[in-house]
Amino acid sequence: MTSGTSVTSREWQLIARPHGAPRPGDFALREAAPPALRDGQVLVRNLYLSVDPYMRRRMDDVPSYVPPFQLDQPMEGGAVGIVMESAADSLAAGDYVQHMLGWREYAVLDAENATPVDRALAPVSAYLGALGVTGLTAYAGLLRTAALKSGDVVFVSGAAGAVGSQVGQMATLMGASRVIGSAGADDKVALLRAYGFSDAFNYRDAPVVDQLRRAAPEGIDVYFDNVGGEHLEAALDLLNPHGRVVLCGMIAQYNDVEPAAAPRNLILAINKRIRLQGLLARDHTDLRPRFLSEVGGWIRDGKLRYQETIADGIESAPQAFLDMLAGGNTGKMLVRLPG
Amino acid sequence: MTSGTSVTSREWQLIARPHGAPRPGDFALREAAPPALRDGQVLVRNLYLSVDPYMRRRMDDVPSYVPPFQLDQPMEGGAVGIVMESAADSLAAGDYVQHMLGWREYAVLDAENATPVDRALAPVSAYLGALGVTGLTAYAGLLRTAALKSGDVVFVSGAAGAVGSQVGQMATLMGASRVIGSAGADDKVALLRAYGFSDAFNYRDAPVVDQLRRAAPEGIDVYFDNVGGEHLEAALDLLNPHGRVVLCGMIAQYNDVEPAAAPRNLILAINKRIRLQGLLARDHTDLRPRFLSEVGGWIRDGKLRYQETIADGIESAPQAFLDMLAGGNTGKMLVRLPG
Repeated sequence: MTSGTSVTSREWQLIARPHGAPRPGDFALREAAPPALRDGQVLVRNLYLSVDPYMRRRMDDVPSYVPPFQLDQPMEGGAVGIVMESAADSLAAGDYVQHMLGWREYAVLDAENATPVDRALAPVSAYLGALGVTGLTAYAGLLRTAALKSGDVVFVSGAAGAVGSQVGQMATLMGASRVIGSAGADDKVALLRAYGFSDAFNYRDAPVVDQLRRAAPEGIDVYFDNVGGEHLEAALDLLNPHGRVVLCGMIAQYNDVEPAAAPRNLILAINKRIRLQGLLARDHTDLRPRFLSEVGGWIRDGKLRYQETIADGIESAPQAFLDMLAGGNTGKMLVRLPG
Repeated sequence: MTSGTSVTSREWQLIARPHGAPRPGDFALREAAPPALRDGQVLVRNLYLSVDPYMRRRMDDVPSYVPPFQLDQPMEGGAVGIVMESAADSLAAGDYVQHMLGWREYAVLDAENATPVDRALAPVSAYLGALGVTGLTAYAGLLRTAALKSGDVVFVSGAAGAVGSQVGQMATLMGASRVIGSAGADDKVALLRAYGFSDAFNYRDAPVVDQLRRAAPEGIDVYFDNVGGEHLEAALDLLNPHGRVVLCGMIAQYNDVEPAAAPRNLILAINKRIRLQGLLARDHTDLRPRFLSEVGGWIRDGKLRYQETIADGIESAPQAFLDMLAGGNTGKMLVRLPG
């Protein structure tokens, strides 16, 4: 069975690999007719597109856990949308789904790669953030990678970002005795306090290690790293014996042309028996039902808050991505398309 | 009960904190009469003294898992000796014991801090190396910290050293499919081949990352790090997804005045979900019975070999320590006292 529907879609393509910070001219918005539906496929009109730090790495031509973006091909990323047409038994027109063919207005994909989302629990945009990969990253990172224990003191960097803001709140809900967050603007620091962080600081005010020592005079047990660099070095200084580091992101380094020379104090990990472990949510999809139930409940009950920074229109996607890399977002950065 | 015995002992004291590489003038050999025995104590004449990389860190006045050496006080370290006099029920004159009051000819200590050694299994010196903390470090590091799995490809640096030489051989005995070692001299590389390492290279010959890539074209699963610096960076490049790094030592950096700026590629740990974990044998003393039984059996059956580099006489201890830091030893570096 094939579809007779024909729509015109616009999609963002990478047309030049950035050297250092990406520039608007590295991207082009191009028209493309989605392919005809094959059996088992659906046509989705995207409502929200996700722009995430990890996408910067996919713009480089280096091997990684996902292949680099191809030049002059549509980029990919998280998206939620509504099924317009279905050639699959499992989905019907009008269903809302989350999938990975973002950066475009319309997507054609196998129904098995589209996950239905429950609009009764939260607005659909939440499935790109607090109830999506972002939230699962925070949840699995604390539960498994950090093996969070009751009473732990937790430090999270990029704490006003999509992952960080969830990490801090979840850590408290999961039994941490103290949660400290760092961010790069005073209004973000104020938001962290409003979210119930025990302490928060603006990393631009003074050296991270000094501010962290003041906030955690008895040291920290878990460091959730979204930033790398100076933050990771400060955390290694302050970590208590048997401390755990969740290596989730190093946004401070994504645009670096030369590799960053840090941390200079990794040797401390020996005597303090610190564990550092890289985290990707993809290893923890088995947690998703438990995550949706527990975290969905926290959101519904108002115990866990999230924020979104929204850019409107497909045209705004690259700039939203660049703004997010520069810290212009609070919470999850999203691009909203006309509903 | 107090002892009437009176002996004169010589002991090494740290008299100046080294800045960078220690110098012979930082140490002084001084006479001291051991204190009279109190109830529950023994007087031990030391037969072998251990000099180990970690002692360099204790010469700096920085907080660590063991307090720094105090100036003008006897230094401490592993030793084996014979009980000369006992005021404890558990030990008798003539018993051989391992304890931590090295760097001296005679030691007085509580019997509970002296562990009897079985001379039927191996010569007493082995209890400072292959059957001592050194061997337990290798064993626990592979079994627990690396969680070694059958078929893993293992890379170990400092592979002709006390810990490294045991790691490589044990890894094979524990199911590794391939074991690669690096060392800093051609005769050491030859020894590794004689020990049955799958491959070995001299890190001074060419960049570590190039030699490691040649030796492990399909990557490595476990890196046992005794060296830090360039070796750790190369290992991160070559580690396969879900690889594990045992952070055991960073001898390349112990004399550094400025902290080393490496590894520059820790960011790879995220996408490859690499785990790095600091290791101290003291966390794994519960393994000791199993270790003595299994590793003692391997040694007795000739499946596990070890080597010692021996310096004679209490006078030689600081130079033995300096030689060991500079890589002058093969296998375990020991100071032998007249029996």
